[in-house]
Amino acid sequence: MHIVCLDFEGVIIPEIWKGVAQLTEIDELNRTTRDEPIYSKLMDYRLEILDKHGIGMQEVQQVIDNLEPLEGAKSFLDWLRSETQVIILSDTFFEFAKPLLKKLDFPTIFCHSLEIEESGRIAGYRLRQDDQKRIAVQGLKSMNYQILSAGDSYNDLSMLEEAHQGVFFCPPDSIVEEYPQYPVTRTYAELAAQISPFINSAPYPG
Amino acid sequence: MHIVCLDFEGVIIPEIWKGVAQLTEIDELNRTTRDEPIYSKLMDYRLEILDKHGIGMQEVQQVIDNLEPLEGAKSFLDWLRSETQVIILSDTFFEFAKPLLKKLDFPTIFCHSLEIEESGRIAGYRLRQDDQKRIAVQGLKSMNYQILSAGDSYNDLSMLEEAHQGVFFCPPDSIVEEYPQYPVTRTYAELAAQISPFINSAPYPG
Repeated sequence: MHIVCLDFEGVIIPEIWKGVAQLTEIDELNRTTRDEPIYSKLMDYRLEILDKHGIGMQEVQQVIDNLEPLEGAKSFLDWLRSETQVIILSDTFFEFAKPLLKKLDFPTIFCHSLEIEESGRIAGYRLRQDDQKRIAVQGLKSMNYQILSAGDSYNDLSMLEEAHQGVFFCPPDSIVEEYPQYPVTRTYAELAAQISPFINSAPYPG
Repeated sequence: MHIVCLDFEGVIIPEIWKGVAQLTEIDELNRTTRDEPIYSKLMDYRLEILDKHGIGMQEVQQVIDNLEPLEGAKSFLDWLRSETQVIILSDTFFEFAKPLLKKLDFPTIFCHSLEIEESGRIAGYRLRQDDQKRIAVQGLKSMNYQILSAGDSYNDLSMLEEAHQGVFFCPPDSIVEEYPQYPVTRTYAELAAQISPFINSAPYPG
């Protein structure tokens, strides 16, 4: 019996902060971990910017509601959920992800969460636990599941390593060179071709 | 951050074997753990009866496709999945549950599985692990989640005990007398009234 663990941003949906920066035309929100490697500092900065522009939970959810899952993601996920169990392991926040989760018929996601005041102001955030992707795969393995993890980025390496099988999806070239042990896939058909034999399913029809 | 663990049969869908017995008019499939307390013997018996009547995977899925989730279950589950994460913990088999999971937009389920031959004959079954409901809750707790479990029956007691909060849904009187520590709910509105404060959500609108 199997569980497929998928990263969310970059695999099923676009990068949320990039989308918010683009739709709100607030250039400061384009800052990423490349500019500010300490994640807590980056998040504090982002929430400060939202505050400065008077953007609370309701406004940011309205913005995010204009984002769409990546092309083909919904069909791929629908197929996968009909064949096996799928858990999305993501470093996003549930409240931000919600409009996109709704468009995907609410797949299960293990991620972080925000602290929202009654006024709608985003006061802060709670990271569920350190190294959450690895610990989630360990927990699912303790339930006697065979795990395949797929992700695109450095924060996915722990879940790829901990899984019985790891797969890259649309990764940057740098990570592929550093971690040649993981097969590289660039379309949902290619990703499905890695997953099907692992879960003993019929081939992906998409 | 929270996860709600729900039993499936008796909480979201009707009892599958009872439904199959009724729709196929094969009275022998009404046998339950009350008649044969050793589960593996009961399952062997059931698969033997299916075999005798020439009922393979395709036929049994067609039968199960005529079953419907309990009244109100879909709305309740849709609401719950939009508010928090939900895992169904069930002693059913994924292949049997599939037509009903489809009608519910594929919530995540941790359960058991069947061994299907190429011809469609159900050759056997695989129980994922002993005491699977308890171990699943333990695994989810290791991911730093607060867990509420809801079930109707004796095989749910381990997940109710292991969770931060346990709730009965439509339980038989006998179990209520034996385990007075768990609140008893008999409608989705009552169940939601137990869940809402636990997950800090708005009240169930249903």
